[in-house]
Amino acid sequence: MDHETVRVDLGARSYPIYIGAGLLDESGLLDAHIAGRQVLIVSDGGAGPLYADRVAAALPDRDVDVLRLPRGEHEKTLDNLNLIFDRLLERRFNRKATLLALGGGVVGDMAGFAAACYQRGVPYLQVPTTLLAQVDSSVGGKTAVNHPLGKNMIGAFYQPVAVVADIATLESLPERELLAGLAEVIKYGVLWDGTFFEWIEGHLDRLLARDVSVLGHAVRRSCEIKAEVVNADERENDVRALLNLGHTFGHAIEAGAGYGAWLHGEAVAAGICMAADTATRLGWLGGQERGRIVALIERAGLPTGAPAALDPDQLLGLMQVDKKAVDGGIRLVLPLAIGRTAVTGDFDAGALRETLEHCRA
Amino acid sequence: MDHETVRVDLGARSYPIYIGAGLLDESGLLDAHIAGRQVLIVSDGGAGPLYADRVAAALPDRDVDVLRLPRGEHEKTLDNLNLIFDRLLERRFNRKATLLALGGGVVGDMAGFAAACYQRGVPYLQVPTTLLAQVDSSVGGKTAVNHPLGKNMIGAFYQPVAVVADIATLESLPERELLAGLAEVIKYGVLWDGTFFEWIEGHLDRLLARDVSVLGHAVRRSCEIKAEVVNADERENDVRALLNLGHTFGHAIEAGAGYGAWLHGEAVAAGICMAADTATRLGWLGGQERGRIVALIERAGLPTGAPAALDPDQLLGLMQVDKKAVDGGIRLVLPLAIGRTAVTGDFDAGALRETLEHCRA
Repeated sequence: MDHETVRVDLGARSYPIYIGAGLLDESGLLDAHIAGRQVLIVSDGGAGPLYADRVAAALPDRDVDVLRLPRGEHEKTLDNLNLIFDRLLERRFNRKATLLALGGGVVGDMAGFAAACYQRGVPYLQVPTTLLAQVDSSVGGKTAVNHPLGKNMIGAFYQPVAVVADIATLESLPERELLAGLAEVIKYGVLWDGTFFEWIEGHLDRLLARDVSVLGHAVRRSCEIKAEVVNADERENDVRALLNLGHTFGHAIEAGAGYGAWLHGEAVAAGICMAADTATRLGWLGGQERGRIVALIERAGLPTGAPAALDPDQLLGLMQVDKKAVDGGIRLVLPLAIGRTAVTGDFDAGALRETLEHCRA
Repeated sequence: MDHETVRVDLGARSYPIYIGAGLLDESGLLDAHIAGRQVLIVSDGGAGPLYADRVAAALPDRDVDVLRLPRGEHEKTLDNLNLIFDRLLERRFNRKATLLALGGGVVGDMAGFAAACYQRGVPYLQVPTTLLAQVDSSVGGKTAVNHPLGKNMIGAFYQPVAVVADIATLESLPERELLAGLAEVIKYGVLWDGTFFEWIEGHLDRLLARDVSVLGHAVRRSCEIKAEVVNADERENDVRALLNLGHTFGHAIEAGAGYGAWLHGEAVAAGICMAADTATRLGWLGGQERGRIVALIERAGLPTGAPAALDPDQLLGLMQVDKKAVDGGIRLVLPLAIGRTAVTGDFDAGALRETLEHCRA
């Protein structure tokens, strides 16, 4: 089947991302990236029933087992991670075994982290089936589980051997999850590429209508941007932090609303608008550009501010516990223009406070 | 205070090992390797009461907290690992926080693995207070916890920022733990350096009498050998596997006897004798050299074979689940001479079987 390839260049840990419709059944593509005999497909109640049998059928020469994890962000726990280790050990999976993550970001994060830790590291293959996972979780090597006191607090940097993004899986994605994924696509435009932002403005209706070729381009360009950023700085000290545009606000919203009440992408959408709002209040971003950002997110049916129930002090407290905070100070990723962003801890706290007071969903 | 330094050379992740008596109070030495303000001393009921206050006192400018983990190999679990994350998050430790492992191998493995995972990686400083930890766990970057179905099955390769080995802490070490540490010292001689083996033969009485300068030399030379091997091959595909001399047998004994019944070093001592026995049965190691190895281990008061209660089939099954087994086959590290070893999966299974039948503690 036709597909495009984005290469993530990380020296010995480089890997390809394949993007196309129908790749789940591409036996050759999947099998080429599996070294040992044993494969554990890690999935959940969403993607598992839809796709696990097809993927297993595409690997006829492997010893394939399927594990379904409990579904949802609130299930991304150390206890559930242990379900993966239990299965691997019960089935005597060795160090050459491959973990195949089949599902959204939660499944990818957990299977990836389990692969990083099992016997101190076994290969894993990412098969993301949500738009968010295809454009976000599948690039960058971040894996993690949550802790009751913080999101993604326990994890590892660990690269997959390959990512297989089957665009056809997006056809059956619930509307709300499609929109949440679009939030990250818009994020890439805002933070890195004004031309891509403009392309999204022009193709939003076809994206919402799930036009496969238009979605394919959105996934490809998003992965390219993320790969460019990650190539520049794998461990997020400088450039990579830009990818967190909207995330410090977003994590506070997710934590404040209770994990799972807001989808990650929804919180990021609101966070992007809030970052743009703060940047404009500081005089760093033009009001017209802020307006275009907020308008696109609104047209996509996504929230543009925090829930009314969370007061500014609560949000501020939650932002301080975010792991991007250093020694209690808050660092923000703020847009300077559409397509250009900066990270800073040096800003007028009054502007942030006004954003927290005024930016409401 | 006087100390010697062994440098582990791993590019950007290189680090020094300081060896000397009284280093626990060396404020400058400890503090130089701490970057952020926050320090969590991770210890247990053994080293904690003896040394935690002294280490904290040596760090007057840091915000130091102390966590005592439950003591013993059987407590090296994912649940107890979470106690570290709980404390780090309750105290709002950020990404610049340092974990300081103060204790034996269990504490080092857990604090190191927690450091590898907390916020996807924070610095950690190793302060090993047992001979085993000083010569083994503090070099090589292996961290892990156990799973009910296998030892060290969940972990990471993660390097400390420095290791501070205070030889004076060995004076209060229980006799049995000192001997267990000596087993690893002897292992280095057998696998890599015949001259060092001879030196141990000549200095065993002073080692057993805890002569500080002789112990210091044993720790230094052991660390040097391990560092040489790790430098050659950080991720254990070839050379590094030699360090597992005695471990495939040893892990089977530990698992079969129930974690904690045998000390790790005791099991390794028995495993070295068993490996030597198999090698001699295969005609790869001279009987006289086998005799010297077994005699030295016996003189050190260490076991030279498996417990009588474990029959050969049981041991064989446990050896197959060991993570060095690939696709069910057993790979063994076998001495070819005192000071030279090889890894092989290609040997007459009958010789192994005879060893399992005849080598008894």
